[in-house]
Amino acid sequence: MNGAQSLLQTLVDAGVEVCFTNPGTSEMHFVAALDLQDGMRGVLGLFEGAVTGAADGYARMAGRPACTLLHLGPGLANGLANLHNARRAFSPVVNVVGEHATYHRALDAPLTSDIAGFAGPVSGWVRSAESAEAVAADAAQAVQAAQGPPGCVATLILPADTAWNAAQGPAPPLPSAALKAPNPPQVDAALAALRSGEPCALLMNGEGVREAALRAASRIQQASGAKLLGDTFLARIPRGAGRVELPRLPYFAEQAEQALAGIRHLILVDAKAPVSFFAYPGRASELTPSGCAVHTLTERGEDAPAALTELAEGLDAARLPPQISALRQVRPPHGPLTPESAAAAVAALLPENAIIVNEAATSGFAMAGMTAGAPPHDVLDLTGGAIGMGIPAAVGAAIACPDRRVLNLEADGSGMYTVQALWTQAREGLDVTTVIFSNRKYAILQVEFMRVGAHNPGPKAMDMLQLDRPDLDWVALAAGMGVPGRRADSAEALHAALAEGLASPGPFLIEAVMAPG
Amino acid sequence: MNGAQSLLQTLVDAGVEVCFTNPGTSEMHFVAALDLQDGMRGVLGLFEGAVTGAADGYARMAGRPACTLLHLGPGLANGLANLHNARRAFSPVVNVVGEHATYHRALDAPLTSDIAGFAGPVSGWVRSAESAEAVAADAAQAVQAAQGPPGCVATLILPADTAWNAAQGPAPPLPSAALKAPNPPQVDAALAALRSGEPCALLMNGEGVREAALRAASRIQQASGAKLLGDTFLARIPRGAGRVELPRLPYFAEQAEQALAGIRHLILVDAKAPVSFFAYPGRASELTPSGCAVHTLTERGEDAPAALTELAEGLDAARLPPQISALRQVRPPHGPLTPESAAAAVAALLPENAIIVNEAATSGFAMAGMTAGAPPHDVLDLTGGAIGMGIPAAVGAAIACPDRRVLNLEADGSGMYTVQALWTQAREGLDVTTVIFSNRKYAILQVEFMRVGAHNPGPKAMDMLQLDRPDLDWVALAAGMGVPGRRADSAEALHAALAEGLASPGPFLIEAVMAPG
Repeated sequence: MNGAQSLLQTLVDAGVEVCFTNPGTSEMHFVAALDLQDGMRGVLGLFEGAVTGAADGYARMAGRPACTLLHLGPGLANGLANLHNARRAFSPVVNVVGEHATYHRALDAPLTSDIAGFAGPVSGWVRSAESAEAVAADAAQAVQAAQGPPGCVATLILPADTAWNAAQGPAPPLPSAALKAPNPPQVDAALAALRSGEPCALLMNGEGVREAALRAASRIQQASGAKLLGDTFLARIPRGAGRVELPRLPYFAEQAEQALAGIRHLILVDAKAPVSFFAYPGRASELTPSGCAVHTLTERGEDAPAALTELAEGLDAARLPPQISALRQVRPPHGPLTPESAAAAVAALLPENAIIVNEAATSGFAMAGMTAGAPPHDVLDLTGGAIGMGIPAAVGAAIACPDRRVLNLEADGSGMYTVQALWTQAREGLDVTTVIFSNRKYAILQVEFMRVGAHNPGPKAMDMLQLDRPDLDWVALAAGMGVPGRRADSAEALHAALAEGLASPGPFLIEAVMAPG
Repeated sequence: MNGAQSLLQTLVDAGVEVCFTNPGTSEMHFVAALDLQDGMRGVLGLFEGAVTGAADGYARMAGRPACTLLHLGPGLANGLANLHNARRAFSPVVNVVGEHATYHRALDAPLTSDIAGFAGPVSGWVRSAESAEAVAADAAQAVQAAQGPPGCVATLILPADTAWNAAQGPAPPLPSAALKAPNPPQVDAALAALRSGEPCALLMNGEGVREAALRAASRIQQASGAKLLGDTFLARIPRGAGRVELPRLPYFAEQAEQALAGIRHLILVDAKAPVSFFAYPGRASELTPSGCAVHTLTERGEDAPAALTELAEGLDAARLPPQISALRQVRPPHGPLTPESAAAAVAALLPENAIIVNEAATSGFAMAGMTAGAPPHDVLDLTGGAIGMGIPAAVGAAIACPDRRVLNLEADGSGMYTVQALWTQAREGLDVTTVIFSNRKYAILQVEFMRVGAHNPGPKAMDMLQLDRPDLDWVALAAGMGVPGRRADSAEALHAALAEGLASPGPFLIEAVMAPG
């Protein structure tokens, strides 16, 4: 058994069953081990952003890590943006990065680079294996580190000779840590705030937006009058009929300030005190209202559902029925294709237990309202703002949940970043329906251009914010990667194409050509 | 005038005329400045790997930097792989990376990351602007640093408030450094070696492979019997009729050892002592023969052409006519599409003064031999091994040299990494003909799999090295981005398609479906 085989067996024994990869020469022994050790599924991506985004999507739905296999520093570099998103989602990822043999590193061959330097900013744990004998134990620790809680990207750098030299065998799995019990003084402080009679809000994220946690939060809301708010972007949120609907902190700072206006006690549940996504001239970046006390109920890694349950009990509300969304049938839409009619088409057809991977940006703003009463489903958001998460994350979610339909709502600008992941959807035969909202511009930037005070864009500036000249043909792009597709330029056409896509086995892409607006 | 305008004007005044960009909210004032200051061309890429690869290709052909404009850490991350190649090419690049406003950075908003951490491994110079008043001077220094010599990636991090706050005005250009004069003891040592009567070789790169330097090297070769060798991958090399043909150090270590066997004096001209591209079990990584003395004639930044001229003079060979390649007409090929027949088609049609961007990998192995007698042209190689350089570098080369035809010879696996750059070719109407060598596998990895001793690949391993299931349809991919194309599956068809592409205005793509082999 060589180091690569011991590594792979250790990963499998620790419950890591999928390897998303784009390997190179220095990773060939790991690749060979896929056939020599049982239990690891290899999934090829044609670009590393597709690989790491898939690992993120997988982790969010499976609740445990996949591993990656990336080729040296440049391969890691190509995957960093989606690892940034994974970091912001607290997704567990075992990020295996091949490296030159230990004795080859100092020679500065062309592909040599500072791998640990690239990995540091996105990783909660980084280690370079230094011998084939040690790599199995390193891998066991990587899995443990990745799982947290909270989850993180654990980067294991694998010099080629630690893969090809002889090893003893696999290392046993290390125990996963449990969520930490809530901190009683923090629970007490939050309870005192909720009992104060002053306006309160709970800002929620992480374990605080799991289904049971949201039920407890609803009881708190009913008993105390506290406002519930989710962070603007959430790694995973249960929604739809039968679930507690969680309003979100709005994206634009002035709307977020509005949502928090008058709040005297802000209770943070796996969330941080709110800040605006970007800075704007003359506008405060910190969104907590002046004079509002901030109480941290739980930090990441603490048991937010338990803390919320304690609060509900403290308010004598533990037996209140939570306020849940009723099933609401949405009629198929008609007319021009707008964010509203597109949302209606989705809401009318969303299958039960679907997974929505949401990177729709401006075209998706009506989606949450319209789907609140759809059959129960999960939504995965862009947590780190690094666009190009959607198509890959849909790959990972579909592999984690082969019995569930995945619907990827995707902005055209974002989709182009990691369009290569469509090929993996075709190769793996994944039940993913992708809707590309084709407005042929970076629409959010045209809004932001005004908001940052860079008024009166001239023709050169506008050119940098437009995706036209030439228009992208998404149906052709999908066909080029083996994914069937349709173009839809009306609400009726989108509804028909969605019905077709959601009923077809394997991937399907719809280019939703939005009405100018 | 705000900081962004002062920055832009400083760049223009220093000779930076093209900005390759994929901006976001934090870069909107820079984008706005494109219309407010004259002289900067903005070129949009739909992914940052397309942006940085274009900046590399531009720098190699223009001999001066373009600037980039990237969106925060994740935008930089997406561009790192091609900045790694630029670093290995010693290409001057002014790499402008937007950042949150200075006061917003500490708030850890979702897009916050360690930008300097990401930039460090690829940059020769990194600075974060800290005020609008200072940003112009920072920009002038960035241009100076990028230009070297040797050239480097100079990363200027631009917090949003240093762009939007008021500035005094542009900063004057700083002087460019000249190449350092050759070091007399090093010239003397090389001369002594060349006169020793023992077998000598010159290993050449950088300024040592410019046209005049190669003529001097040819004189040295004729007078001393020394062998001339170029590094395996060169940022830019003049080739074809009328030029001195420079053989290359082979890629595979055992062939490289063969090329160097018996050499007693290895004279390095802007090159390092040779090492194998990858390590292999049981094989030495350092390729200098045992007992061979290594003499550094010039390091990067020293005047290699002058040093070579001094050597030629020292050998009384300054007036020898250099041995140059004769023009050789290659006949249009017939039969199956193989690396040999593909090379013949290229050689038969290559226009005078063409720029070949070479990322053909295994399918390109016959190209150098076949085109040695083609009309004079330049070739740009993949210097850093980070695949995905070709399509973007062709963008940059075409913008640097609008009067020259660009021919991008591209492997299918590599091409998929930054396929988005085809769209920029269409938008900018660039005269780029792309030949995708479609062998539907990572062919080099199938070779390397055996070479690293990971014998007998099983089906799971082979799956990770194949681009089939489904086959990519490159003509559809190109059409999806507005680039016309043809599929060619014979030598005749490739010849006809190349003739069409090279005669057409604007970009054209040929999927060359290689015969199984």
